Amino acid sequence: MTETLESRYPPPTDPPIPLDRIVRLADFEGPARERLHPAAWAYYSGGSWDEHTLRDSLASWARYRLRPQVLVDVEQQDLQTTLLGRQVSMPVGIAPAALHGMADPAGECATARAAAAAGVLQVVSTVASRSIEEVAAAAPDSLRWFQLYVQRDRSLSRDLVQRAEAAGYEAIALTVDLPVLGYRDDILRLDFDPGKDAYANLPRRAVWEGEIDEVLDLRSVGLTWDHLGEIRSRSSLPLVLKGILTAEDARLAVEHGADAVWVSNHGGRQLDRVAAPIDVLGEMVDAVDGKAELYLDGGIRRGPDVAIALAMGARAVFTARPFIYALACAGEAGVARALAILREEIERTFALLGVRAPADLTRGHVEPAG
Amino acid sequence: MTETLESRYPPPTDPPIPLDRIVRLADFEGPARERLHPAAWAYYSGGSWDEHTLRDSLASWARYRLRPQVLVDVEQQDLQTTLLGRQVSMPVGIAPAALHGMADPAGECATARAAAAAGVLQVVSTVASRSIEEVAAAAPDSLRWFQLYVQRDRSLSRDLVQRAEAAGYEAIALTVDLPVLGYRDDILRLDFDPGKDAYANLPRRAVWEGEIDEVLDLRSVGLTWDHLGEIRSRSSLPLVLKGILTAEDARLAVEHGADAVWVSNHGGRQLDRVAAPIDVLGEMVDAVDGKAELYLDGGIRRGPDVAIALAMGARAVFTARPFIYALACAGEAGVARALAILREEIERTFALLGVRAPADLTRGHVEPAG
Amino acid sequence: MTETLESRYPPPTDPPIPLDRIVRLADFEGPARERLHPAAWAYYSGGSWDEHTLRDSLASWARYRLRPQVLVDVEQQDLQTTLLGRQVSMPVGIAPAALHGMADPAGECATARAAAAAGVLQVVSTVASRSIEEVAAAAPDSLRWFQLYVQRDRSLSRDLVQRAEAAGYEAIALTVDLPVLGYRDDILRLDFDPGKDAYANLPRRAVWEGEIDEVLDLRSVGLTWDHLGEIRSRSSLPLVLKGILTAEDARLAVEHGADAVWVSNHGGRQLDRVAAPIDVLGEMVDAVDGKAELYLDGGIRRGPDVAIALAMGARAVFTARPFIYALACAGEAGVARALAILREEIERTFALLGVRAPADLTRGHVEPAG
Amino acid sequence: MTETLESRYPPPTDPPIPLDRIVRLADFEGPARERLHPAAWAYYSGGSWDEHTLRDSLASWARYRLRPQVLVDVEQQDLQTTLLGRQVSMPVGIAPAALHGMADPAGECATARAAAAAGVLQVVSTVASRSIEEVAAAAPDSLRWFQLYVQRDRSLSRDLVQRAEAAGYEAIALTVDLPVLGYRDDILRLDFDPGKDAYANLPRRAVWEGEIDEVLDLRSVGLTWDHLGEIRSRSSLPLVLKGILTAEDARLAVEHGADAVWVSNHGGRQLDRVAAPIDVLGEMVDAVDGKAELYLDGGIRRGPDVAIALAMGARAVFTARPFIYALACAGEAGVARALAILREEIERTFALLGVRAPADLTRGHVEPAG
Repeated sequence: MTETLESRYPPPTDPPIPLDRIVRLADFEGPARERLHPAAWAYYSGGSWDEHTLRDSLASWARYRLRPQVLVDVEQQDLQTTLLGRQVSMPVGIAPAALHGMADPAGECATARAAAAAGVLQVVSTVASRSIEEVAAAAPDSLRWFQLYVQRDRSLSRDLVQRAEAAGYEAIALTVDLPVLGYRDDILRLDFDPGKDAYANLPRRAVWEGEIDEVLDLRSVGLTWDHLGEIRSRSSLPLVLKGILTAEDARLAVEHGADAVWVSNHGGRQLDRVAAPIDVLGEMVDAVDGKAELYLDGGIRRGPDVAIALAMGARAVFTARPFIYALACAGEAGVARALAILREEIERTFALLGVRAPADLTRGHVEPAG
Repeated sequence: MTETLESRYPPPTDPPIPLDRIVRLADFEGPARERLHPAAWAYYSGGSWDEHTLRDSLASWARYRLRPQVLVDVEQQDLQTTLLGRQVSMPVGIAPAALHGMADPAGECATARAAAAAGVLQVVSTVASRSIEEVAAAAPDSLRWFQLYVQRDRSLSRDLVQRAEAAGYEAIALTVDLPVLGYRDDILRLDFDPGKDAYANLPRRAVWEGEIDEVLDLRSVGLTWDHLGEIRSRSSLPLVLKGILTAEDARLAVEHGADAVWVSNHGGRQLDRVAAPIDVLGEMVDAVDGKAELYLDGGIRRGPDVAIALAMGARAVFTARPFIYALACAGEAGVARALAILREEIERTFALLGVRAPADLTRGHVEPAG
Repeated sequence: MTETLESRYPPPTDPPIPLDRIVRLADFEGPARERLHPAAWAYYSGGSWDEHTLRDSLASWARYRLRPQVLVDVEQQDLQTTLLGRQVSMPVGIAPAALHGMADPAGECATARAAAAAGVLQVVSTVASRSIEEVAAAAPDSLRWFQLYVQRDRSLSRDLVQRAEAAGYEAIALTVDLPVLGYRDDILRLDFDPGKDAYANLPRRAVWEGEIDEVLDLRSVGLTWDHLGEIRSRSSLPLVLKGILTAEDARLAVEHGADAVWVSNHGGRQLDRVAAPIDVLGEMVDAVDGKAELYLDGGIRRGPDVAIALAMGARAVFTARPFIYALACAGEAGVARALAILREEIERTFALLGVRAPADLTRGHVEPAG
Repeated sequence: MTETLESRYPPPTDPPIPLDRIVRLADFEGPARERLHPAAWAYYSGGSWDEHTLRDSLASWARYRLRPQVLVDVEQQDLQTTLLGRQVSMPVGIAPAALHGMADPAGECATARAAAAAGVLQVVSTVASRSIEEVAAAAPDSLRWFQLYVQRDRSLSRDLVQRAEAAGYEAIALTVDLPVLGYRDDILRLDFDPGKDAYANLPRRAVWEGEIDEVLDLRSVGLTWDHLGEIRSRSSLPLVLKGILTAEDARLAVEHGADAVWVSNHGGRQLDRVAAPIDVLGEMVDAVDGKAELYLDGGIRRGPDVAIALAMGARAVFTARPFIYALACAGEAGVARALAILREEIERTFALLGVRAPADLTRGHVEPAG
């Protein structure tokens, strides 16, 4: 009998938590920790090495402060923006994260329905618990991108891209910061192993085996800039490069025709002791010089964080863990609540800043903290 | 039967605390917390979002240090100054705060009597528990300003200004940093609702309804610089703009004829992640360039804070929470004690700095901390 | 029957603590706290206002780091230096502090014997528990200065200076940072009152009365630079100005003929929010420009602190609290142990820095911490 | 009957701890503390004075951040480098530390076998528990250097160097930062005394006697640059100067023909309040200017630390305490595990940085933290 992800790390079965006292994304964290299997909590919440980068990315926002302009008419607000030409209802998207199935039996399908209802972009992971096609079917007409881990077996990558295109995904977000897995102390101690059948998009032979020296198929240890053409040739979809942290690489991304550069340290899960994304955004803006869209993830939790990132030059921001925790707390309704809170916080932040829309934000609205 | 503010969040009924061991403003805080209704405590003490700005404003004073001059004759001290031409006994005033009635049955009238006895300026809030006229009657011959929240119903604002002028208030302090309410986690969780009759100056239909999406009447979401002329035309009173944090807005204030610019982040209750007022005072001094008076509130608790602000260029400073807590501890006598402590601390600070009067303070008396 | 200092705040009567496990000055602190009357502990250990300056002066040394030079022959060390022409065995002296009598029945006489045995300078306070003459008699042939608080009654100051000169004290250290007392929260709460007979050098009518508004005689509220000539004229002793924190005042001190400038914030007991002395020493060195000797007190506890101060330009450093605590722990033997520890620490520090004597230290041996 | 080190401070006798849950060097620390004699723990783990430098050296790495380059082919990694011309399997060596015999009965011999198996350099201390010859015999064909404390009795130093050369040690690492012992509070309190027979390489008369004033023979209080020629003349071995922290001394080292400069603060055990080595590495690189190899120890615990040091210009790094603790936990197997963890961490760090080998690291891979 096959051991499934659900049998190893079962999602919560208690009734969803009440949402009326949940007023910020962090409010999902405590209940999620209680409801998730300890290994699932460790997997979702943890970072690499001493988690310096994980903590620093959360703390980084305090290094900036907002400069509100008063007596501006903010009666008519509009949070909408476009991402690679497609409209979204606000400049925040759901970042890819593995294995939503440990948080909710419906996994990425529940997340998809909440994202669709809120009009926000969902980026679905290669290592999702539900397949490319299942997620698409759960919320057919909404905006969705596919996050790609290039596989050692190149034909597997090709198939994934083509399946995503066929299922209506509208861009490929290629993760470039995982040539090997980051060194995650807790995961190594826990011997975390989701099982051979955990990854709905991958055949059994391809899965991550979880041992220090046997992470064979997921890691893109030999992937270089030269392979981008090949990946691009597999579909007509635009290409987003996710996981860039230096101006040099941002320039290379533009030179190699990336449609967007996604500044990220992979949630503090890959190399530790690297920059919080907001701390390098300025040099990325200069390097990209308007030739690609620029996104950011890393510690986004509240409306003012979003305003800081946009004022510094990001077109949109992403976050993942808060949505996983919301999913663990109350399934689709939890994710919907998380998105509603974020929208409300952004509206208030914008009004108090004296801006009506993302495009009104300028570098003048932010400065280094005193 | 109508539910009143007093029935929902009753003020303390225990005897006043003894004041002989109260030697600093912070000493009122613990007892006030015990004596106030928990929701009243949360309302008075809380800030917006993660309360970063609330904490930072208190911490900001440590970023400056004083440079004492010795062997100066400080035998004759005089703390008096003028505010918009009227003399006050010291350069500290009582900032406006809503609903003193949760701290003391006499509400703003008790505060008024203590302020009058001490010769300090009281600024009374639009959303006071006691009416414009009641507060004036409580201490008829003393200096008082009216803090104005512009109402969606413009005739209501006009009436408030005219009532204030008629009752002898001598300036309008227009709050410009509340186009919408800040996002206050605790208040949202507590479902704080003072009731329809809580605001003595406002008709029932105008009150703040406390729900995320229904803050209709208090917020000045459409107010712009262009409306200042209209407000000014309602009375002959000078106009103070309260809630400015950038040099750009300070310049606009001067251009639009403001008599004074009040640097404030609204006690950390509006936009979070903005500057502590003292950290931007320098740029405000340059922007205002002597064309308007300049005030500041934000974390003022002790004599050296006052000296730092004045040396950096503020004409006067304000604070609110310490007086609310003093009121909750011992009513009018508590506020009187708070004012006496502050006066004593300022006198000692001035003597140790080698200055006799506010006008003796210069930029040379302060520098960034090491 | 007269209530004496000893009856109000009696010194420890338990046997002295064993000294063999006391290896640093801080080791005296815990036992001293246990042995002293709580009010005496509060009086000795406390600072003014929020004690920011008290804590910061201790923390300030960590803002500098030492630059050791290796492979220097440090076999022959000599810690001796001269202070106003008189030789001392090491560049650390005992700073004045009031009322040693609460720490030991022999008060300043015990301290004097330990200082004399160690060949270090003792500075005796105007408000000592023992008289000028008693302290001199306790250790007749050693180096001693008299700390002067100018009294409102000028004849009293004249008498004090003349008595000190007659008793063999070799300089007057005039305290210039006490026009009024600092605002000391704990002391105000405790109602600390040493009693009319506590101060051996002062007639009863002159004593400090301890109430906020009645600190009459000790404070030098009207003292100015112009009075220095008068003070100087009372004796032939050199004049040290103690309590200067700015370059402007250091220059004035030199212009008015001060023989030495003593950089101090009065142990964090006068104005709070002022500089830690080491943080302004650099500007003082420039201002004094070799025209007067330069001393420093403020948080000196260990050998490396002494080396930092000397490398930055101080001729000698002083400290007071550690010797009071040592006195409370073991009387004269405690002070002797404190001095021996400090000497040992300085010798090791010097050897590890590659210097043999105070004069070998240069600005190149210290730099801002990273 | 002679009292031996083993009888005073016996090494652990419990079975070795299981190593499968040990995933980082810090994991050895807790168990080691439990297993070691308290005095041995204090001796190994402690630093001098207030241990500011000890803590700061650990914290210093957070002041730098790595700049990862993505989409680099890192499939073929090679961590090998050369030290003074001899190949090692990775750029990390085992720093000298006294008295391994308190951690394991086999002492430095166990460490030697683990180092040899891993192909890393071991530097053996003058004050080892096992003799020069015993350690060499334990792992005869591997790379080993001898750390030299110059003895007051010069013939003793000469003998040590000649014995080391004869036993196949390939360099002399002369410690230059111990003219006297640092002031170690805990050691002074504990009266730590390893006994006359503890040091296998030294005759009884030469041992450190542990009293403040009687550290006679180990300290090189009179050693100067002029003596380096004499030391060099005793053998044909290259000379490494260990314990340099300033550019001036690095230049002197090069001028006096040192083959390598080892930047170190002696694990925070000599002068306190000095720089963390990584904070001065930049100035050392400039000073040495390629004329000598450059090493560093000080708080190295994880792969990213190693990458930061190498990117800043060190050829190799060393650490000591983690190996002592590993030895105390599981003897030779513990040290082997520590080395394997470090190797794995460095490989992952390199891959995530986009480098294949030590020589690929450049100053562009590191920058000050934000």
